[in-house]
Amino acid sequence: HHHHERSAGIIGAPFSKGQRRGGVEKGPDLIRAAGLREKLQAQGCAVKDYGNLTFEEVASDEPVGRVKCPRAVGSANQRLSEAVQAVKKDGHTSVMLGGDHSLAIGSIHGHSAAVGELSVVWVDAHADINTPLTSPTGNIHGQPMSYLLRELHSKIPALPNFSWIKPCVSARDLVYIGLRDVDPEEHYILKLLGVKVFSMSEVDRLGVARVMEETCDYLSAKVKKPIHLSYDIDAIDPSVTPATGTPVVGGLTYREGMYITEHLSQTGLLSAVDLVEVNPLRGRTEEEVQSTVRTAVDVLLGCFGRLREGNHPADYLMPEPGRA
Amino acid sequence: HHHHERSAGIIGAPFSKGQRRGGVEKGPDLIRAAGLREKLQAQGCAVKDYGNLTFEEVASDEPVGRVKCPRAVGSANQRLSEAVQAVKKDGHTSVMLGGDHSLAIGSIHGHSAAVGELSVVWVDAHADINTPLTSPTGNIHGQPMSYLLRELHSKIPALPNFSWIKPCVSARDLVYIGLRDVDPEEHYILKLLGVKVFSMSEVDRLGVARVMEETCDYLSAKVKKPIHLSYDIDAIDPSVTPATGTPVVGGLTYREGMYITEHLSQTGLLSAVDLVEVNPLRGRTEEEVQSTVRTAVDVLLGCFGRLREGNHPADYLMPEPGRA
Amino acid sequence: HHHHERSAGIIGAPFSKGQRRGGVEKGPDLIRAAGLREKLQAQGCAVKDYGNLTFEEVASDEPVGRVKCPRAVGSANQRLSEAVQAVKKDGHTSVMLGGDHSLAIGSIHGHSAAVGELSVVWVDAHADINTPLTSPTGNIHGQPMSYLLRELHSKIPALPNFSWIKPCVSARDLVYIGLRDVDPEEHYILKLLGVKVFSMSEVDRLGVARVMEETCDYLSAKVKKPIHLSYDIDAIDPSVTPATGTPVVGGLTYREGMYITEHLSQTGLLSAVDLVEVNPLRGRTEEEVQSTVRTAVDVLLGCFGRLREGNHPADYLMPEPGRA
Ligand SMILES: [Mn+2]
Ligand SMILES: [Mn+2]
Ligand SMILES: [Mn+2]
Ligand SMILES: [Mn+2]
Ligand SMILES: [Mn+2]
Ligand SMILES: [Mn+2]
Repeated sequence: HHHHERSAGIIGAPFSKGQRRGGVEKGPDLIRAAGLREKLQAQGCAVKDYGNLTFEEVASDEPVGRVKCPRAVGSANQRLSEAVQAVKKDGHTSVMLGGDHSLAIGSIHGHSAAVGELSVVWVDAHADINTPLTSPTGNIHGQPMSYLLRELHSKIPALPNFSWIKPCVSARDLVYIGLRDVDPEEHYILKLLGVKVFSMSEVDRLGVARVMEETCDYLSAKVKKPIHLSYDIDAIDPSVTPATGTPVVGGLTYREGMYITEHLSQTGLLSAVDLVEVNPLRGRTEEEVQSTVRTAVDVLLGCFGRLREGNHPADYLMPEPGRA
Repeated sequence: HHHHERSAGIIGAPFSKGQRRGGVEKGPDLIRAAGLREKLQAQGCAVKDYGNLTFEEVASDEPVGRVKCPRAVGSANQRLSEAVQAVKKDGHTSVMLGGDHSLAIGSIHGHSAAVGELSVVWVDAHADINTPLTSPTGNIHGQPMSYLLRELHSKIPALPNFSWIKPCVSARDLVYIGLRDVDPEEHYILKLLGVKVFSMSEVDRLGVARVMEETCDYLSAKVKKPIHLSYDIDAIDPSVTPATGTPVVGGLTYREGMYITEHLSQTGLLSAVDLVEVNPLRGRTEEEVQSTVRTAVDVLLGCFGRLREGNHPADYLMPEPGRA
Repeated sequence: HHHHERSAGIIGAPFSKGQRRGGVEKGPDLIRAAGLREKLQAQGCAVKDYGNLTFEEVASDEPVGRVKCPRAVGSANQRLSEAVQAVKKDGHTSVMLGGDHSLAIGSIHGHSAAVGELSVVWVDAHADINTPLTSPTGNIHGQPMSYLLRELHSKIPALPNFSWIKPCVSARDLVYIGLRDVDPEEHYILKLLGVKVFSMSEVDRLGVARVMEETCDYLSAKVKKPIHLSYDIDAIDPSVTPATGTPVVGGLTYREGMYITEHLSQTGLLSAVDLVEVNPLRGRTEEEVQSTVRTAVDVLLGCFGRLREGNHPADYLMPEPGRA
């Protein structure tokens, strides 16, 4: 019998109403079809797949101010929060496959409800920290962190189906990696709150290894909290992961994308992961879709202990000619 | 009313006779069409567009030795030098849109005529420092620095329409970044003059951040002179900026290309920029042309304060639910 | 007359039976056709081309255990070992153009037979250190180091046409660079033997410059041995060198690939080079093949002193107007 040091509880969240482009709801099944379960198991990780969530149809979901589809987003995230709580209570590392990044609301909320105070590492080209009142587009996938941060509570107006959300993350427990397309309003918020940001300029200056060292030093300065990794596939360069809704040039290399996961995995603190914004309809060719999906899978494998130097089971015995 | 910390004075120089490939004269209008003015203004930069220069036809322009089209190049650069002087006298940061790199002769000459001693940062795959006598091709876009350096004055033969040029840059005030295709004769000159060179080997060894730190330390060791940035788009890797006349593998990444501008912009010393060698006829697809042009625009936005971490106006006020 | 500091003795080894994909036997002639000889000579390197080896047909070559084509591989490598010994006795740096990586057996064996103890730098996505008993595929190109390491001698069963091979490399004299697809059995072996490995994670963490510094410090800690560089083109990223049998995402950049050769060349210790696994039939387009072949040539030029900052002959005289 295998001893599993790690176990993954997979939740599919085929939801796309946090933004306007169809296709991102296909992410969970595509990532599964690329062999996520089998590859995790092959590297000695136990896997329980909780299947795809189903979301209730919202009959009428008119914008509130600029905010689009608030009822659908609020309701889907409440459902997701409960699912993540169940996965955590079963003792797994939660793996939420999106869907768009508005799902981080429910994923982080549920994670925090189950385990308490969290560190959040947000890997993304975007800060996704607009409030409903600053958002230039009204798409909620550009706003999730604003609902989750205690420091922004007073800036958030009431929205239908959002009343269950209690801010559960402190600004000092949040680190961004990969930013390169930040709205002026978001930049103001990040500075106001003193959020730790490693934009692509900092990745260039420090290198990804020092970024990860500083990230973990910063988050563990006082106490080691469970880490929630919210990984937007658009953090990685569009030459690698083009099949996504809002690609931005100048992103993380595939290697940097992997290094982040290798480092976080080795902390032993990784407790939940979101992998979001894979959108096959945004790939111009099948090869672009496949490259995006394969990279998403590799991100997740890295989260569960895969190392590029290789791995071997603790009990491996080497064959010798005499015994062959 | 907006307070503009920065203002750009744009000169289009649709000139291609410093090399043999048609198309590079389309650079200025393409870069404008990609929204340069609007994007600069959106980031709070004042813009005055001085339009495109017109260059006199030179009836007969036979080579002199190996040097091709000396009369046209000499005359166009004299015209450009006057235009740059006018832009500087109007108080702008000069932005010269090429056109080929022979235009650096007039751009740097005019800049120096207006403001005095300069630091020159030359970002390029090539050193463009052949003399008329060492040049293997005779194309003047591979020679401009040789006419500008005081130390090379005695090596330069007389050429028609070049008599107005007085060398105005000292070798110690010049830094190269990105070199990877240097002729033996050029390498000899660089070593003879002790020019500071960060070839791609040094970029690999030091990383772009330390290259920029060392560049600025080196140039400001004694006195902080205004910086002239002469940016050949072929410095960046052909996978990003393929639409150029003499692409060379192994170039700067898009990110390194941006980092250079972010760093120089933050010195507060950037006084003139050349953006040259965008040639749409050298792109094999429209996507290749667009990627090249978009990158050229991003280089210029970086020169005027754009940061990948984001920017916000100093007077930004955050909306709150009560006031919304 | 030119004084040649360096001389290359080129051996073509059009052999593909260490793996299952036809086409890799075309490597030597493609690399030659891309101008290897002319380019080496242009940078002041003497060249002697020993032509292509011819390999005897093996009438019947049934697998032994899982090992495929052992007789053909054993016999071809014996022939190659003799050829490399002849090249070394003629005083050249040996350049073995593969062919697949099983050829490293004969190349390293012959090199060691001629000059004694070696340092081996193995640049590859793969460790190629499976024993005949651990290999999951039975392809010998995934096993060559296992036959060469003294420490693994007891793990290697007898194979037909392999009896001439005596292990000639110590595990402490071996450094890997670029690993990112290592079998669990190989990982076990690398850890067991304490082999120095710079996987892509270490390249990310340290940067290629420090990797090369540490590589050379490690190998020269006690005594400076001649260096054998075994360069699998699949070490470099498939976006650059796709025409190879077992491409793996997340590889070395073109620039890192060059830096490795620039650094090793400057040690003065480089005594033999393998350039293997270029397979034109694995390119999907002619451009993919050309990029792979051009990169292979550039790797070899780097091994013989080419620097991206440029080079010039020691006796260069600069032309002046008076003498022109
Ligand atoms: Mn994003
Ligand atoms: Mn996002
Ligand atoms: Mn150039
Ligand atoms: Mn140039
Ligand atoms: Mn390989
Ligand atoms: Mn190999």
